[in-house]
Amino acid sequence: MSAGMTTRYSLMDLPPSTIPRLREEDSGVMKITVTIYDEASYREAVISGVKGCFILQRGPSITWIDVQCLHRAETLDALGECYGIHQLVLEDILTDQRPKAEDYDKYLFVVLKALYLSAKTRKMTIDQVSIILGNNYVLSFREKDEDVFRLVRERLKTAKGRIRKMGADFLAYALIDSIVDRYFIVLESIGERFEDVEDEVVTVPDRSTLLDIYTLKREMLFLRQSVWPMREAVSVLERMDSPLIADNTKIYLRDVYDHTIQVIDNIETYRDMSASLLDTYLSSLSNKLNEIIKVLTVMSTVFIPMTFLTGLFGMNVAYMVKALEYNWAFPMILIMMLAIALTMLTYFKKRGWF
Amino acid sequence: MSAGMTTRYSLMDLPPSTIPRLREEDSGVMKITVTIYDEASYREAVISGVKGCFILQRGPSITWIDVQCLHRAETLDALGECYGIHQLVLEDILTDQRPKAEDYDKYLFVVLKALYLSAKTRKMTIDQVSIILGNNYVLSFREKDEDVFRLVRERLKTAKGRIRKMGADFLAYALIDSIVDRYFIVLESIGERFEDVEDEVVTVPDRSTLLDIYTLKREMLFLRQSVWPMREAVSVLERMDSPLIADNTKIYLRDVYDHTIQVIDNIETYRDMSASLLDTYLSSLSNKLNEIIKVLTVMSTVFIPMTFLTGLFGMNVAYMVKALEYNWAFPMILIMMLAIALTMLTYFKKRGWF
Amino acid sequence: MSAGMTTRYSLMDLPPSTIPRLREEDSGVMKITVTIYDEASYREAVISGVKGCFILQRGPSITWIDVQCLHRAETLDALGECYGIHQLVLEDILTDQRPKAEDYDKYLFVVLKALYLSAKTRKMTIDQVSIILGNNYVLSFREKDEDVFRLVRERLKTAKGRIRKMGADFLAYALIDSIVDRYFIVLESIGERFEDVEDEVVTVPDRSTLLDIYTLKREMLFLRQSVWPMREAVSVLERMDSPLIADNTKIYLRDVYDHTIQVIDNIETYRDMSASLLDTYLSSLSNKLNEIIKVLTVMSTVFIPMTFLTGLFGMNVAYMVKALEYNWAFPMILIMMLAIALTMLTYFKKRGWF
Amino acid sequence: MSAGMTTRYSLMDLPPSTIPRLREEDSGVMKITVTIYDEASYREAVISGVKGCFILQRGPSITWIDVQCLHRAETLDALGECYGIHQLVLEDILTDQRPKAEDYDKYLFVVLKALYLSAKTRKMTIDQVSIILGNNYVLSFREKDEDVFRLVRERLKTAKGRIRKMGADFLAYALIDSIVDRYFIVLESIGERFEDVEDEVVTVPDRSTLLDIYTLKREMLFLRQSVWPMREAVSVLERMDSPLIADNTKIYLRDVYDHTIQVIDNIETYRDMSASLLDTYLSSLSNKLNEIIKVLTVMSTVFIPMTFLTGLFGMNVAYMVKALEYNWAFPMILIMMLAIALTMLTYFKKRGWF
Amino acid sequence: MSAGMTTRYSLMDLPPSTIPRLREEDSGVMKITVTIYDEASYREAVISGVKGCFILQRGPSITWIDVQCLHRAETLDALGECYGIHQLVLEDILTDQRPKAEDYDKYLFVVLKALYLSAKTRKMTIDQVSIILGNNYVLSFREKDEDVFRLVRERLKTAKGRIRKMGADFLAYALIDSIVDRYFIVLESIGERFEDVEDEVVTVPDRSTLLDIYTLKREMLFLRQSVWPMREAVSVLERMDSPLIADNTKIYLRDVYDHTIQVIDNIETYRDMSASLLDTYLSSLSNKLNEIIKVLTVMSTVFIPMTFLTGLFGMNVAYMVKALEYNWAFPMILIMMLAIALTMLTYFKKRGWF
Repeated sequence: MSAGMTTRYSLMDLPPSTIPRLREEDSGVMKITVTIYDEASYREAVISGVKGCFILQRGPSITWIDVQCLHRAETLDALGECYGIHQLVLEDILTDQRPKAEDYDKYLFVVLKALYLSAKTRKMTIDQVSIILGNNYVLSFREKDEDVFRLVRERLKTAKGRIRKMGADFLAYALIDSIVDRYFIVLESIGERFEDVEDEVVTVPDRSTLLDIYTLKREMLFLRQSVWPMREAVSVLERMDSPLIADNTKIYLRDVYDHTIQVIDNIETYRDMSASLLDTYLSSLSNKLNEIIKVLTVMSTVFIPMTFLTGLFGMNVAYMVKALEYNWAFPMILIMMLAIALTMLTYFKKRGWF
Repeated sequence: MSAGMTTRYSLMDLPPSTIPRLREEDSGVMKITVTIYDEASYREAVISGVKGCFILQRGPSITWIDVQCLHRAETLDALGECYGIHQLVLEDILTDQRPKAEDYDKYLFVVLKALYLSAKTRKMTIDQVSIILGNNYVLSFREKDEDVFRLVRERLKTAKGRIRKMGADFLAYALIDSIVDRYFIVLESIGERFEDVEDEVVTVPDRSTLLDIYTLKREMLFLRQSVWPMREAVSVLERMDSPLIADNTKIYLRDVYDHTIQVIDNIETYRDMSASLLDTYLSSLSNKLNEIIKVLTVMSTVFIPMTFLTGLFGMNVAYMVKALEYNWAFPMILIMMLAIALTMLTYFKKRGWF
Repeated sequence: MSAGMTTRYSLMDLPPSTIPRLREEDSGVMKITVTIYDEASYREAVISGVKGCFILQRGPSITWIDVQCLHRAETLDALGECYGIHQLVLEDILTDQRPKAEDYDKYLFVVLKALYLSAKTRKMTIDQVSIILGNNYVLSFREKDEDVFRLVRERLKTAKGRIRKMGADFLAYALIDSIVDRYFIVLESIGERFEDVEDEVVTVPDRSTLLDIYTLKREMLFLRQSVWPMREAVSVLERMDSPLIADNTKIYLRDVYDHTIQVIDNIETYRDMSASLLDTYLSSLSNKLNEIIKVLTVMSTVFIPMTFLTGLFGMNVAYMVKALEYNWAFPMILIMMLAIALTMLTYFKKRGWF
Repeated sequence: MSAGMTTRYSLMDLPPSTIPRLREEDSGVMKITVTIYDEASYREAVISGVKGCFILQRGPSITWIDVQCLHRAETLDALGECYGIHQLVLEDILTDQRPKAEDYDKYLFVVLKALYLSAKTRKMTIDQVSIILGNNYVLSFREKDEDVFRLVRERLKTAKGRIRKMGADFLAYALIDSIVDRYFIVLESIGERFEDVEDEVVTVPDRSTLLDIYTLKREMLFLRQSVWPMREAVSVLERMDSPLIADNTKIYLRDVYDHTIQVIDNIETYRDMSASLLDTYLSSLSNKLNEIIKVLTVMSTVFIPMTFLTGLFGMNVAYMVKALEYNWAFPMILIMMLAIALTMLTYFKKRGWF
Repeated sequence: MSAGMTTRYSLMDLPPSTIPRLREEDSGVMKITVTIYDEASYREAVISGVKGCFILQRGPSITWIDVQCLHRAETLDALGECYGIHQLVLEDILTDQRPKAEDYDKYLFVVLKALYLSAKTRKMTIDQVSIILGNNYVLSFREKDEDVFRLVRERLKTAKGRIRKMGADFLAYALIDSIVDRYFIVLESIGERFEDVEDEVVTVPDRSTLLDIYTLKREMLFLRQSVWPMREAVSVLERMDSPLIADNTKIYLRDVYDHTIQVIDNIETYRDMSASLLDTYLSSLSNKLNEIIKVLTVMSTVFIPMTFLTGLFGMNVAYMVKALEYNWAFPMILIMMLAIALTMLTYFKKRGWF
């Protein structure tokens, strides 16, 4: 459960401004993709570690360094020194952060949460993505062994759309947009799960339905926790007065902002629905209990007086035993019992029990 | 359930700035109505596609191009090129959007959700309506095969009211007003359904009542999701500092704004009521359970001691069998049983069970 | 239920700027009271319709035209033309509106909801009151056949207090104040009903209690819907920068504003209480169920083993029948049964069941 | 219940600007304490009514007139005339008001609610305290026969602390502070009651526990209603730009403001806790019900098949009667029954029922 | 329960501006640690009381006086006089306060709540920490016998990181940071407890689970009460326009602020989850009840008609007794009973009861 919540505690015994390391368990093999492109050319190289400092590109060509499965601190230290990144930023990249956008004058720092959805188990994984946008370069850091940026890279390679003609800010926008778009896929999947649970709740509510509802509720809470600050972060970026973001890119950022709002709207609606679902589930259970109890009550109250009569006429009372020796005694008793049963059933019918 | 929520996922694998296509299933036959009018004249033409560019009207006459069952992208591309519409706007028209109003200097872009209510099934359909207001022209795009603008068109034709004397901004206002007015019809219908459910909850709460309440709750949530941003959109329009909207039109927009607030008030009230209904339903069920259990308890506790007595006197115990041979034994036993039954019933009466 | 909610739908098929008519059913006989007064003189006339235009008073004397049971549109049209009222205002007067205050430069337009409480049935009626405050005149329109302004009129007639010495703005204030004061009477009555229901919930919760709670909850929701915007309307008036409201009148408006806040405080408190009441009701029912089930369980578990024993000794098993022929058999059996019953009862006593 | 809510209705039939009288029942014997002091001297006089006008003090000495059990209107009228108090203020003093602070240029007007806690019954009483702070004088009006200002008066008399060296604004601060401090005593008592109820809920939830929870919830709602506006009132005072409050007194007002926030925090926490308590109570009841039903079910299902067997072997079927004449029949039957009972008990054990 | 809530009541009978004493019971042995350091040197001394005034350090060296288990007022008075601290501040240090940050020109005053977690019992303790940041000095006061500042002191001693090179503001930041970091440890522990309870709720909900949920809920409420104002306090510090805080320290304060937001996010999520847990618990109980009742009903309704038959054939009715003398009577009866039992079981199977 605590996944995605408080991994910061590993940092407790360190001075506040040094760089704590991520736990090794989280990581696959680190993979660094360096992409250098301008409108005419495109070069890409995959390396496994950074020790010295890259030579900074001049002129219009843009450098994008994307680190997947980040866990070796030397790489981060090297990149940090090379691009002049503040120590607090490096620390933030390695520890669990709320989504946010910050202006450090020479570069902008954005933290977002990317979602991956396992196709089989329908389980969500959360990945923290840090993006640094500088003059003509973009650095991106990811923790998990999945590639949220695959499509952006393909578009860059094939020069599809305007992405190769625009600056580093448009690349950063494209990265953020691809993260936000992921949320719609997750929401789509959650929508389907809601439909499944809704059907169950009304027809056959059982223990597993309860677990499903509770799980949905909890996932909504955790999604919420990463989406609300994401909205704030995109909004801060859009309104930021930085020369690093061109005005015509801001229209695109507003579009991303609209998408985050749409995501929030849906999550809030689902959250409200999950609350209703739980209430409906309880009511549905009560309904079922009433039906069961009705069966018990009808059966009991119909047979209890009849059984009493059989007891009565089964007593070893001499006086009565004689009376029962008449031939008409048995049919009389049966008619009596039938009358009782019918009276009871009519009574229940009238009260609308069945 | 996911209708009206996240159809954006079809856009996932496309570059963020190209135009994705709507799914064909949503569409009937596309129908484009071109209306050109001024105070004196009125012309209307229905066409099925747009390839070249219309000749823009000059002087006071106003062009209104209304596209119903939008699904052929070439039409949109052609109109977009002709009127100089930004690619992001064209993308927004084709994908699911929150209601919003945006100022693109040369034109204003408004997205709203129109509601249709099926007369038979009382089911709601949501239609996304995009309106572009430019200098002397209005473009409107709708997805569903229903005509929310029928009355506006009639008034234009018959020159009823001041609509022919006013500019394109007043036409846009009339279109928005006709969309907002639809909500009152839907609310009226929901009000009736609430009354039905309220009666059921208190008198005969059953499984179908529960389903009705849950459905009402869910519909309220979805209505809310399209109304709150609609209020925001109208408010943005009203306060917008654009030469495209004349000051005397703003008074009318304020009126529309008041109507959206009224819609929101009603929806919020209904939402609160649906929550109360579910709680009341559960209480009503509990009430019913108590009554059923009371019947069971009264019957059981009255007969259980009496049946025990019949068992007691039915035992093959020689000593007792002799005692029961006296003639007064049977009446004595009956009196004993009657006394027990009366004691029990008096006890229940005192506790107010019936 | 829909009373006071969405009567606007009758307006659906009309152009947005014409004046729709109120449904006749709502109306009694229209009654127009024209009052002209200044510090020294007072004239009052009751008429039944307006066709031409009144001669406007000059100098210090103030005209107040109060229309009760408004339903003839010609009257409104005539007054509208005579005083130069905007068509949207006339439309608002005739249709269901949220309380609001608007500045139309030459006059101010205020819509409020007045409450009447039927002395017998304790039922609320909501009346829409529209007030137009111009230079030296006040127009007021009401729909129901009740007179919320009776006391104001009496004070005017008897020149009690300062009302005759002040301007038209003070008259408008007095009218608004008399509407707000009505809410306290209604709250008083609701307070009494709450006390009644509270007693029932804890002592004898039954189906009618549930209905009472639900009704209180719903009334709170509807009251809320007219009080919150009323607060806003009064606040707008108080802060309005209009020459029509003198500064020394604003202190009185602030006083009215304080009263609306007090009303809201009480309504919100009652709303929270009604939610608690429903929860408490459910708990009280559960309590009762537990008690009933306890009776059933104690009776059943005490007698079930004893009845089993009677069955056992009632079997036609030859071996046992012989044993039971001894004289001590019967007392032995009785002692056994007594022991079982006492054990059971002791067990329940220990668990605190009675 | 309506105590502290809507006593304003007695004002209904009066013109809005006259002074309504408090109901006599609320009042003990009115007691007016006049205190005149400066750094060097201190005089105190208790009188029972005011008719003429006091001679206003000159120079540095400060006059404090404190009215307890206010109910004679002449006194208020006399004081009002003497100090030039606005009629609306006099009306507010005599009617139920929300806590507030208002600036009337020549004096400040503050309304607060003081709480008294009955030592025996733990019941709260609410007292409305109105304070008027003018140049060199403070007027205070209270309705109940309790003295919230006792300690302030003692400090004045004994010249303890700096109170005699400071101005009238510091006296007003001391009065407000003594009112706010009362809330902590009440909160302390409520905290103890919560602890009591919490214990009951988990161990022996019964009807009286329910009543206690409901009462706590209601008291929280009413406390809230007087504390939130109190915070606002103190905040207004602190930020007020009036020459009547010296800058060094403002630090003390900020301290009082911090205390009101602390009170609000605690009340909100208690309010949330009371909601949890009710939910926990319901769950605790359900738990108990489950246990009772388990006992019933175990007993019934163990004995029902066994009793059936006794019935079976008690039938007068000739064929069977013969079979039962063998000596081993009885032990066989007993073994059969024992087997059934053990099977049942094992089954329930496995399901974890006991 | 009242721990950490309202200890202020001990102050009730004191004038508002004198210094009340902490209750002795809270305190261990007071321990004052005086640390004087600059980039090159470090001196530390532990003393047990302060009477005179320390000689203030000149130049770049920084004095940090840390008081643990504060309870002797003379010490505080002495320090207060020596550093010119306002009496209200001294009072605040000794009484229970909400977290806050205040600017007194010559020094800043910060109050925070530190959390300690008992390793064994998982119980939280709350400690009030007051920090005064002046020019070149920091005073810190703590009530409990735990050392939240241990790591800061070590880093100072070993000159690790930049702490010795920076000013007193950075020391204050380090102290605040170490307090905030504590919250993550507590959250981690709470996360684990949530996981435990979640498992129980779904599998074996019992009375102790209910107690756990309630306790978690209550702890969340109290944590919330100290975290929200802590966020505010840090935010005030960050935005404060005081020469005592250098600009490059503010980046670090923004980092602390981000951490407080993260803490709040987690607490709010846990709070929502605890509410869901209680609802889920109730549903889980209802589920279990349904299962128990099903067993009872199936057993009862299967055996009740069969037992009735045994009664019927056990009656002493002469006519019937003869009929039962035939050899086929017994098998016939058994077949009849089997048929009834099978019918019942089939019925329950169909309704999905097992």
